[in-house]
Amino acid sequence: MAIQKKLKMGMVGGGPGAFIGAIHRSAALMDGLIELTAGAFSSNPDKSKQAGEELMIDPSRVYSSYDEMIQKELLLPEGERIDIISIVTPNNVHFDPTKKALENGFHVVLDKPMTLTYDEAKELYKIIKKSDKLFCLTHTYTGYPMIKQMKQMIANGEIGTVKKVYVEYPQGWLYKLLEHENNKQAEWRTDPARNGKAGCFGDIGTHAFNLAEYVTGMQVAKICADLDIKVEGRPIDDDGAVLMRFENNASGILTASQVDTGCENNLKIRVYGDKGGLEWQQEDNNSLVVRWPNKAAETYRAGTGYLGSMANENTRTPAGHPEGYIEAFANIYRNFARCIYALRKGEEPKAEWRDFPGAEDGIRGMAFIELVLASSASDQKWTPFIVEK
Amino acid sequence: MAIQKKLKMGMVGGGPGAFIGAIHRSAALMDGLIELTAGAFSSNPDKSKQAGEELMIDPSRVYSSYDEMIQKELLLPEGERIDIISIVTPNNVHFDPTKKALENGFHVVLDKPMTLTYDEAKELYKIIKKSDKLFCLTHTYTGYPMIKQMKQMIANGEIGTVKKVYVEYPQGWLYKLLEHENNKQAEWRTDPARNGKAGCFGDIGTHAFNLAEYVTGMQVAKICADLDIKVEGRPIDDDGAVLMRFENNASGILTASQVDTGCENNLKIRVYGDKGGLEWQQEDNNSLVVRWPNKAAETYRAGTGYLGSMANENTRTPAGHPEGYIEAFANIYRNFARCIYALRKGEEPKAEWRDFPGAEDGIRGMAFIELVLASSASDQKWTPFIVEK
Amino acid sequence: MAIQKKLKMGMVGGGPGAFIGAIHRSAALMDGLIELTAGAFSSNPDKSKQAGEELMIDPSRVYSSYDEMIQKELLLPEGERIDIISIVTPNNVHFDPTKKALENGFHVVLDKPMTLTYDEAKELYKIIKKSDKLFCLTHTYTGYPMIKQMKQMIANGEIGTVKKVYVEYPQGWLYKLLEHENNKQAEWRTDPARNGKAGCFGDIGTHAFNLAEYVTGMQVAKICADLDIKVEGRPIDDDGAVLMRFENNASGILTASQVDTGCENNLKIRVYGDKGGLEWQQEDNNSLVVRWPNKAAETYRAGTGYLGSMANENTRTPAGHPEGYIEAFANIYRNFARCIYALRKGEEPKAEWRDFPGAEDGIRGMAFIELVLASSASDQKWTPFIVEK
Amino acid sequence: MAIQKKLKMGMVGGGPGAFIGAIHRSAALMDGLIELTAGAFSSNPDKSKQAGEELMIDPSRVYSSYDEMIQKELLLPEGERIDIISIVTPNNVHFDPTKKALENGFHVVLDKPMTLTYDEAKELYKIIKKSDKLFCLTHTYTGYPMIKQMKQMIANGEIGTVKKVYVEYPQGWLYKLLEHENNKQAEWRTDPARNGKAGCFGDIGTHAFNLAEYVTGMQVAKICADLDIKVEGRPIDDDGAVLMRFENNASGILTASQVDTGCENNLKIRVYGDKGGLEWQQEDNNSLVVRWPNKAAETYRAGTGYLGSMANENTRTPAGHPEGYIEAFANIYRNFARCIYALRKGEEPKAEWRDFPGAEDGIRGMAFIELVLASSASDQKWTPFIVEK
Repeated sequence: MAIQKKLKMGMVGGGPGAFIGAIHRSAALMDGLIELTAGAFSSNPDKSKQAGEELMIDPSRVYSSYDEMIQKELLLPEGERIDIISIVTPNNVHFDPTKKALENGFHVVLDKPMTLTYDEAKELYKIIKKSDKLFCLTHTYTGYPMIKQMKQMIANGEIGTVKKVYVEYPQGWLYKLLEHENNKQAEWRTDPARNGKAGCFGDIGTHAFNLAEYVTGMQVAKICADLDIKVEGRPIDDDGAVLMRFENNASGILTASQVDTGCENNLKIRVYGDKGGLEWQQEDNNSLVVRWPNKAAETYRAGTGYLGSMANENTRTPAGHPEGYIEAFANIYRNFARCIYALRKGEEPKAEWRDFPGAEDGIRGMAFIELVLASSASDQKWTPFIVEK
Repeated sequence: MAIQKKLKMGMVGGGPGAFIGAIHRSAALMDGLIELTAGAFSSNPDKSKQAGEELMIDPSRVYSSYDEMIQKELLLPEGERIDIISIVTPNNVHFDPTKKALENGFHVVLDKPMTLTYDEAKELYKIIKKSDKLFCLTHTYTGYPMIKQMKQMIANGEIGTVKKVYVEYPQGWLYKLLEHENNKQAEWRTDPARNGKAGCFGDIGTHAFNLAEYVTGMQVAKICADLDIKVEGRPIDDDGAVLMRFENNASGILTASQVDTGCENNLKIRVYGDKGGLEWQQEDNNSLVVRWPNKAAETYRAGTGYLGSMANENTRTPAGHPEGYIEAFANIYRNFARCIYALRKGEEPKAEWRDFPGAEDGIRGMAFIELVLASSASDQKWTPFIVEK
Repeated sequence: MAIQKKLKMGMVGGGPGAFIGAIHRSAALMDGLIELTAGAFSSNPDKSKQAGEELMIDPSRVYSSYDEMIQKELLLPEGERIDIISIVTPNNVHFDPTKKALENGFHVVLDKPMTLTYDEAKELYKIIKKSDKLFCLTHTYTGYPMIKQMKQMIANGEIGTVKKVYVEYPQGWLYKLLEHENNKQAEWRTDPARNGKAGCFGDIGTHAFNLAEYVTGMQVAKICADLDIKVEGRPIDDDGAVLMRFENNASGILTASQVDTGCENNLKIRVYGDKGGLEWQQEDNNSLVVRWPNKAAETYRAGTGYLGSMANENTRTPAGHPEGYIEAFANIYRNFARCIYALRKGEEPKAEWRDFPGAEDGIRGMAFIELVLASSASDQKWTPFIVEK
Repeated sequence: MAIQKKLKMGMVGGGPGAFIGAIHRSAALMDGLIELTAGAFSSNPDKSKQAGEELMIDPSRVYSSYDEMIQKELLLPEGERIDIISIVTPNNVHFDPTKKALENGFHVVLDKPMTLTYDEAKELYKIIKKSDKLFCLTHTYTGYPMIKQMKQMIANGEIGTVKKVYVEYPQGWLYKLLEHENNKQAEWRTDPARNGKAGCFGDIGTHAFNLAEYVTGMQVAKICADLDIKVEGRPIDDDGAVLMRFENNASGILTASQVDTGCENNLKIRVYGDKGGLEWQQEDNNSLVVRWPNKAAETYRAGTGYLGSMANENTRTPAGHPEGYIEAFANIYRNFARCIYALRKGEEPKAEWRDFPGAEDGIRGMAFIELVLASSASDQKWTPFIVEK
């Protein structure tokens, strides 16, 4: 049998000053399944080169653009050539590199949201569906083991028919016009040209929406949104709330804000069915509170022996040794990599491994942005949640 | 100087099987300012008598009806006669005893909501305004010291201009048709004839609404509601969410549910301004989390030396010896009593003592019920929050 | 049948500036079983009179000394005379009023520790044992419903054989020489003449010790103590730790401090057996964490339907409406009062009602003070825990 | 300038069924500074080969023993040869490979405790001191950013003179004779021949001890220990407590247990000085509670802008995106690697990078094991803490 080799990854973006690129790298590297082999780390060739040096990438594999990376890597023999392209650029540079990567035979990991616009998303959705390469969209929070446990318990009917979903993502960092104070993250995330037309709801509202649908396994059927700009002078939303009804008429409340002053990133989701309830929050990510009507609440913990297969496949440490955000991210990369390895070997990957976010999450997220803005601008209470694809 | 005597209280309702009556009594008695002297504890004379015996009330002061209580007490000399009538009956028996008590010269403590219907509320509002007797509506949660602290800090501008308010009241006890299982509390609270036309929103939605306005000192200007009946066969709402905008355009989200299976009573309120944020929840009622943009969050604690006058006037124990729900309730009674004592002495009561809920809270709460139901039934997104009085 | 009358209580101490007197009064009054009828609130007659006026006690029942109170009350007819004497003075005024009260036919509630000295305790123990009146020592923390639940679960064998007990009482208020800054509480509690020869260990160490024995139902067999004075200039211990072994050889660690700077009163106890573990802390007094080897931890909550009889008999509010320190105190008074009522009626009180601390707790607490100081001064590791009585 | 290359690491141990090996690998790989190039993963050559394949190591670099690895790697040219040897075997295989690795010019990362016996430790200490290679002992918990913050705040005098230290490490997994149930971890950790003569205190007591000295910057001067075997049939301690006094006479209490049934790994440390207090626990590892005498407690959070340089150099994610155990481990590897890079470049590494545990921690940990056992066996209360080296 030929010796298995690590998957080789090339990165688009993630150069100096970027935040999410470093997270992607740690997540990809942590489990020893992927190595960072190439990169077009910046559209500025000097910065790309500098990043390549810092990351100790072979200089011949550091490129000035993703176009160059794709072309030159294709010239390399299989086995040496990169397998995966990881795209961690601002949203306006999502569509084109993803399209080209897939069409040139690379697996793709793309930071969310899928694209800058809904139109791009619809086109990219088709491209992904046509491609025989794997596509992964990093809705990080779906990688947490206790979120997986929550999903599996709901799917198993343990809390009965879902009646109510609360999801909230409160941040406070944009409580003032940080984008006027030379803050790179604030600049692009409040700039419609790079971030897309929704601000807070493009950045973190989509995470909350994705998590709600992921965990419940249900789709939103209609929404009623109230978005707002709380800091004067900002061009796009920095706060909002959405009433939702799911297919089965369950009610949902989704809130997201970047002006909840002093808040960090305590994404929280609570789901109640007619038999029980489940509560999770990122600040205590290794716990899942399980509520019952007539007996004591339980606290399920990551790394224990009594969890389901989805949580089990997505942990590394024994109970009480906390895993966190990078591990959640790494779970997405690891499952993605496990599926590629299985493909290589001609094996069917486990269902637990196939459970990483992809095209469906992407197109629904972009529809969410579109429809939330439409609903917020409307005098009508309800806007149907219809996804065009 | 004449010796000061304790205030004498007569109770309407609170007989066998009642829950809130016992809480009122403990709250009234705890601080030694009020004694329970009389009562019409049930509309069933035998039950009233039985309750009187259990409570060790002089049998001559135990009555078969509040009408009888009012008439007979009026025959007693001042000083022996009750000073306060405390009304703890279901909502359909709020208007009449309150009206008669006030019109016959008794101070009144009334359990919330103010009345069965909005029309009754408008009439009672006028009666209260005309009366020279004090009226108190027990919106219990406003009695917590850290809620008082929160109000005072917001009033002092410590968190800047309020931008966002989250208030939630999740209960789970009505997750099934308990009202068909011989549960007295469930029966009347889901019966429009006794509870009023809103179920969950009459019972606990009004508390959440009251708390949001109390703490922020701001009034709601418009609402968008989505109420629902989650348990089939129930005649009135058991769940809902309301988007709100305040006078100053701050956004609010209010949720209340009685079908969040497994939840107890963790009423929670979070308020964010452009300088900081404040978070409180009943489960940890002696703490107030204070968030700032660029420094560590603080946890203010009841009973410490660094709190404001409103919290200080409403605590009994040193920090770390927890006070709770009955003490919050007792704070309302104590402040009410302190105001009556001040009146007796011809003194102006302290502002901190006058801070108990009353007619304004009552009429706004009844308007909330009316308007939330109207909004929920409407296809229009926003319903103006206009109170008729 | 004669009409039942409320129990009448006279108080010794609790005048202006006292802290614990007010707590005793709230606790005694809260449940409507006891009324405050008389008092010798201070050894200063003017202060006693002033307190009586503030408390609205009939001036003819306000006395200049407990001796006077006992003599004059004995002249009153039964039914008018006080039933209970509640003693809330510093420790040097515990022995004498308790002795006289019991010997003159009054039931006694006494604040802990039982006496100033071990010798007094041994004598008082005999007096109590001889008396047909009830004696209650307010080890408050045994009044918490979830502590009662913990005791009952251990007694029922739910966590198996107890192997390990952790109990800690961290305070920080004496982090500096507050006793030199005109702080009345600090003054007497660091003064051996009024507090006894142990400082921190007399004040709160005894609480921790009592709680450990109460909850486990086991007695300490030997100890190894290391007490210290952490603030220079203080005459008695303000910090310490004690290794313990119980009768069954289970290990215990008891720590108490008044110099854990910034700490409030988060008394905490954890007990582990070979089948499970139980954890409780005062800051979250309405919860009891129940741990199991191979399944999720549970959080038992006060006021729920799944608790045992001891917790059930000691709650007032439904789950999620927090009770606190005053309610724990009130549970002790209520059980004490229930027993007196049962005596009056010639009935056997329920076991749950008889569960209030008394002479045994008192003598063991005083032995603890004696032996902890002896052990701390000794070079030998272990000091046997032998109680003389 | 020559292109910087990643550090190459060879691993000793960490084959099939091992737990800590995988953690070491993730920690080493996460930051892209180290790659796993070689390994002697098991003393069983087949198992070593199997592990090498699973880890996708070049088969020519997979060895049957650490001796073979050292010899063969030395034949490789510098730059290709491994730089670091990471040793993750049971304690009886710590001394020899570490000695040989250092003496043959490899940097060493060694899992704690340093050796099987104190004698080995004294010898190894000398070897390390003589070597010009770097030695790192993975006392993981010192890698947490908020532990670093705690250390820095104490060193800066922010809480004044330290008076009191509480450190506890409660586990429950050995609540029964798991070592008789085919549990590999339980087997070697309760076997004196592989684990050393202290069980619980060798495994986790040393962590607690190390953390206490690390955080406070103070050394223990004398101890009084009470260790025990709580599960019948086990040859070595599974539970214990130690009273400590530090050089400056501060008091400490250290507890460690493997029979606190249901407990996971909530290592907790609390330190109080005469100006303030600091509290940290692994379950909430991204928070540090800071207590003050007369103002509100603060919760410092990892990833924020207001922390000191030591925390800042040891985080990866913005506040609210939790890091955990593997990141703490990775901080140790990263600092170790940063120092090696600095050495390569002839630069002085930053003080923050040099802050990883080493020979001093190792020898003191082994002395702790020796002295704790001696103290526990002694009738004398205090045993001086004197380290021979």
